[in-house]
Amino acid sequence: MRNQFYNYITSLQDTIVQGLEAVDGRAKFVEDIWKRPEGGGGRTRVIENGAVFEKGGVNISGVHGILPQSMQDYFKVSNPDFFACGLSLVLHPKNPMVPTVHANWRYFELYDEKGEIVSQWFGGGQDLTPYYLFDEDAVHFHQVCKTACDAHHPDFYAMYKKKCDDYFWNTHRSEARGLGGLFFDYCKPTSEFSLEQWYNFVSHIGDSFLEAYVPIVEKRKDVSYTKVQRDWQEIRRGRYVEFNLIHDKGTLFGLKTNGRIESILMSLPPHVQWHYNHSPAENSEEEKLLKILAQPIAWV
Amino acid sequence: MRNQFYNYITSLQDTIVQGLEAVDGRAKFVEDIWKRPEGGGGRTRVIENGAVFEKGGVNISGVHGILPQSMQDYFKVSNPDFFACGLSLVLHPKNPMVPTVHANWRYFELYDEKGEIVSQWFGGGQDLTPYYLFDEDAVHFHQVCKTACDAHHPDFYAMYKKKCDDYFWNTHRSEARGLGGLFFDYCKPTSEFSLEQWYNFVSHIGDSFLEAYVPIVEKRKDVSYTKVQRDWQEIRRGRYVEFNLIHDKGTLFGLKTNGRIESILMSLPPHVQWHYNHSPAENSEEEKLLKILAQPIAWV
Repeated sequence: MRNQFYNYITSLQDTIVQGLEAVDGRAKFVEDIWKRPEGGGGRTRVIENGAVFEKGGVNISGVHGILPQSMQDYFKVSNPDFFACGLSLVLHPKNPMVPTVHANWRYFELYDEKGEIVSQWFGGGQDLTPYYLFDEDAVHFHQVCKTACDAHHPDFYAMYKKKCDDYFWNTHRSEARGLGGLFFDYCKPTSEFSLEQWYNFVSHIGDSFLEAYVPIVEKRKDVSYTKVQRDWQEIRRGRYVEFNLIHDKGTLFGLKTNGRIESILMSLPPHVQWHYNHSPAENSEEEKLLKILAQPIAWV
Repeated sequence: MRNQFYNYITSLQDTIVQGLEAVDGRAKFVEDIWKRPEGGGGRTRVIENGAVFEKGGVNISGVHGILPQSMQDYFKVSNPDFFACGLSLVLHPKNPMVPTVHANWRYFELYDEKGEIVSQWFGGGQDLTPYYLFDEDAVHFHQVCKTACDAHHPDFYAMYKKKCDDYFWNTHRSEARGLGGLFFDYCKPTSEFSLEQWYNFVSHIGDSFLEAYVPIVEKRKDVSYTKVQRDWQEIRRGRYVEFNLIHDKGTLFGLKTNGRIESILMSLPPHVQWHYNHSPAENSEEEKLLKILAQPIAWV
């Protein structure tokens, strides 16, 4: 499964990068291959200053070695050897009418003293973070997520939509990072759902990414916007930074396992603002977004 | 001591705010009084869009109640009641030739079941974060720190300068946040150094703040700068955000004790940039700064 999934994400990275370059029409992703001194490495692909994408990355990595002590305690393992691989992407569009998107699909293995696998699981998901709310975009994104989930299990969409709302919650602000999507973790083989079935599920979700996101980008990328709307986007991007640096377990895992800093922090937006005690005007579009973020709703 | 120190920081806030408004010449600090539901509150004073200061805050707070479980474990206390008060300030000047400055002076009390003090200590310090390096500014700042320390103990400056370099270290970047200054914590009364002596030391440091910072601002605030230099400042501000959200214990303490978010996060800069894998040109002024940040040096 290590090889099967790594091959999958390698090919998915190509597909997604090609799809996004076609949408952008101007900028190309730049590639960096990196090695991790303790084992493994990755292929980082970053786009900057595009016609559509101000900054973004579509990265794959496969790392192995010894878990840091804190994570050994967390996983309660007797042997600290691990393998983890995944694809992570974040896209920050320039136009505040186009939402930011994040996705990650990953696979993890733990071993016993003889090197036999004692635990293996998939995790991942994708979520949408708009700056201005277009209900039909939210519905479209969630509908694609639901359709992919429904092909594998009737409960998956409801379960993983809920987990996504719970996970991407900025506790210190009491608000969601965005409109959610899917979040799943510790997807382990059981007598009812085999590892191969999990692979089929996760790769189906990965394959549906462009269909979930690109039509929204196409629809909003040429909408005109004002300086005030751009400022609002940069202020909201500040909340994105807060989530990623304070709460995000993926970022933390990368920092603790001596991952490549520039690949981990490519998720941070290019231009960001923090104002003291900013709050939008009553009944504005900005306030409408905040109301939805305060209490996640069902989109499909 | 609770009252004595709270009165001191209340008066110091007035003094510092007046001094900074005089330097800025245009903007005034805006005041917010806030209450913490669990006990205590604070007086936040924020300046924005000044002639000199793009954003900054000089805040005092005094909070009491029950320590969160994680901090009870950390302090190994049988009774979770606590009191903490302090003054925190961060100033982000507009001109990249003027350094950002941070300072914090605080006092902490823990109690037994009868409400008697079982532990009490001071902490604090101040540190300078320039975007362009003027050696004479670093020397001036450290010299004022040293002179104030030397009046109380011949070892304090060396000890607390070292602690500052250690504390404000962005481990994930392997670089210092800035040029350091002083950092001290758990300053508890002993047979050799009484609580009153600690108070005298900490208040002397607090009193020296304007002298340490204002002459540097006066010297640099009207120096002309380019768009490229401003971009560099905003990129370096990104490192400031990373330190505060990933590593800073003060920020974490505030978030864990349900402090007032806008007062805690007033430390975040107004405009910030993150570029992928940015590195300055060889032998540039920007590279000169990075070399110093990679290995803290003695300034006095």
